[in-house]
Amino acid sequence: MEPHTFLFQLVLILVAARLFGELAAYFRIPSVIGELVAGIILGPSILGLIEINYIIQLLAQIGIILLLFEVGVETDLGNLTSVGGKAILVASVGVILPFILGFIVSYNVFDFSILPSLFIASTLTATSIGITLRVIRDLKKQNSKEAHIIVGAAILDDIIGIVLLAMLYEFSVSGEINLWNAGKVLFFVMLFFIVSPILAKGISLIIKKWDENSEIPGLLPTTIVALILFFAWIAHELGAPELLGGFAAGLALSRKFYFPYATIIPDSREFSERVEAQMKPIIHLFTPIFFVATGLALDLRNVDWNSMYIWLLTGGLLLAAIIGKLLSGLVLNGEKWKMKFIIGTAMIPRGEVGLIFANVGLTAGAIKDDVYTSLILVITFTTLVAPFCLRWLYGSTPDHERIENGKINVEV
Amino acid sequence: MEPHTFLFQLVLILVAARLFGELAAYFRIPSVIGELVAGIILGPSILGLIEINYIIQLLAQIGIILLLFEVGVETDLGNLTSVGGKAILVASVGVILPFILGFIVSYNVFDFSILPSLFIASTLTATSIGITLRVIRDLKKQNSKEAHIIVGAAILDDIIGIVLLAMLYEFSVSGEINLWNAGKVLFFVMLFFIVSPILAKGISLIIKKWDENSEIPGLLPTTIVALILFFAWIAHELGAPELLGGFAAGLALSRKFYFPYATIIPDSREFSERVEAQMKPIIHLFTPIFFVATGLALDLRNVDWNSMYIWLLTGGLLLAAIIGKLLSGLVLNGEKWKMKFIIGTAMIPRGEVGLIFANVGLTAGAIKDDVYTSLILVITFTTLVAPFCLRWLYGSTPDHERIENGKINVEV
Repeated sequence: MEPHTFLFQLVLILVAARLFGELAAYFRIPSVIGELVAGIILGPSILGLIEINYIIQLLAQIGIILLLFEVGVETDLGNLTSVGGKAILVASVGVILPFILGFIVSYNVFDFSILPSLFIASTLTATSIGITLRVIRDLKKQNSKEAHIIVGAAILDDIIGIVLLAMLYEFSVSGEINLWNAGKVLFFVMLFFIVSPILAKGISLIIKKWDENSEIPGLLPTTIVALILFFAWIAHELGAPELLGGFAAGLALSRKFYFPYATIIPDSREFSERVEAQMKPIIHLFTPIFFVATGLALDLRNVDWNSMYIWLLTGGLLLAAIIGKLLSGLVLNGEKWKMKFIIGTAMIPRGEVGLIFANVGLTAGAIKDDVYTSLILVITFTTLVAPFCLRWLYGSTPDHERIENGKINVEV
Repeated sequence: MEPHTFLFQLVLILVAARLFGELAAYFRIPSVIGELVAGIILGPSILGLIEINYIIQLLAQIGIILLLFEVGVETDLGNLTSVGGKAILVASVGVILPFILGFIVSYNVFDFSILPSLFIASTLTATSIGITLRVIRDLKKQNSKEAHIIVGAAILDDIIGIVLLAMLYEFSVSGEINLWNAGKVLFFVMLFFIVSPILAKGISLIIKKWDENSEIPGLLPTTIVALILFFAWIAHELGAPELLGGFAAGLALSRKFYFPYATIIPDSREFSERVEAQMKPIIHLFTPIFFVATGLALDLRNVDWNSMYIWLLTGGLLLAAIIGKLLSGLVLNGEKWKMKFIIGTAMIPRGEVGLIFANVGLTAGAIKDDVYTSLILVITFTTLVAPFCLRWLYGSTPDHERIENGKINVEV
């Protein structure tokens, strides 16, 4: 692809994301839906103007890592830890139930053999952390208790997803499952999650010192982005999802991070605010690329809209997908019913993570085109509908209250 | 290449650019030299950690387009027009003289045949707009009269370079030169340069209106970047250098842009400042990638440091390269001698543009490895030394006076 062709694709992606995002907001629909739809329209499903390619995927990857960084910055580690047990419960139930239900639908009802049934069941366990967090942020609920449970559970889901995918892939190749490997991955992920925010905090203190003494402009954007991508890389090297690195770097830079030796480290609130003001435009530039890319990756041309079989399969899987995740919120103790429903609903979108499962299954030859189509429909439906339900559950928030604080930060 | 490998390369590029940039500034060397050296060290010349690849080139391309946007924003179109005649003189002399001198050295002194001599001569006509403008900006001289002459001449040089390269390439393939094609390209470039700032201004007014009414955050980063890349794309489609599109978009958003109907358009100074504050972090993130990539593209391993022939050839070409450009400043009338030397020196770095010529010549088979090596040495030398001379000519500027205004913009 010629460089200028790519520049034009990038222009299309950015403009379409914005246009459809604004249009969605105008009709009181979560703007992330607009960005997904922009991708579906630009992509092979409708106009076929842009085919998803390696560079777009890469920029999208940076986009989701930066989004998780922003979520990390805004996360209160204390609050996150205090809801840790609940997050683990939601994540576990939200993986186990859809898996069992999905397996029953595939293996018992639709008579698939073991391997495709496992792939289908695993696809249903995914949670699209990106979609969920964007909706929560758009509704300005990111500091609520339920948001912390959702963030924690979604991140755990991503970790479980990576482990599950590795196991499944191995099984589809060798016919065996190596629990030792899975355990090793889990161990490293836990280690990463404990060590990395502390390490990132240490590096951020060096950057802060450096920033105070630097005489050439532009230190923060380059070093902070480098810090974030560095931790994303480490996460990947340890077998964890890359976006976990972004989240860890964000936690380290959040205003409420408590370092083990917090007493000897001077308050860096002013620095956190500077970092946020400088990072906002970069985050805002990259994240829409992720959501448009998710839409671009869907190919709804494959869907044979007249096949009764596909609709039945889709219906069955959809039920398994929704009930399984909804129950993960409902089993919580000591929360109001509305909150339980909100948490369960937030876990429903499958988004990009589900797509990865379905694509690996298709490429590995474990599932056929018709099953793939059904999974694409389930992913599309859960991804597009859950944000509506969330907004409805929260009650309508007047749009003009959702003014960006970044804008104010920058100008004041 | 795996995505995480690329993330790691990006981390290396950003961190090395910063480290060497700061190190250079500490030793009172222009920081852009530090970034170039970072690229030379990371690249095949020394460590071989990163090979220049398509994605890095693309991000570098975006970097130089954004740098030209920033230059455009800070350019006073009135001032640029008022020095237009001088810029044309500098650009013309600075193309014709190095071409003639380079041709004499190659054809008459070193006995090359016509085609290689033409490629060598053309390589010497290039001016690295990126290097020159960075140094001028680092010295905070971007609003001076000589800076306007340099900007104008460097942009004209880039246009002439594109036309020359197209002609040469055609000649090396077909053995003929089509002046009609060259004239067509020049016509379209002129047309673009007249129409695009007005068009971009119109679009920016729409963005401004949109920004005032938008309820979801992040409008400016996405739409302004899309605007810039869109004009870069148009420029390319018309046969002009892509960075001209960035410059045109910048002019349109500068605070001193005079629209033909300026009387009916409300003052948008506040909007310009908002755009600048939001764009600065993005520009600071991307531009170092360009300079590191320029260093990565150099392969000094090819140099046979013991070959007398190469040193003689290099010496001859270097003389032609430096005298030709220096005279382009010295021929100016009515300027002080110091200014004449500053302008001439600013045109000396060949940088990325010279590399493109040399690489096309090598790929087309017009020049051989030894000549290529000599050209690389000429490019490296002119690129690395001219910034020193410029700083020396300007007299030393205390480093602590070069505090970034962007930082202040953002925080105040």
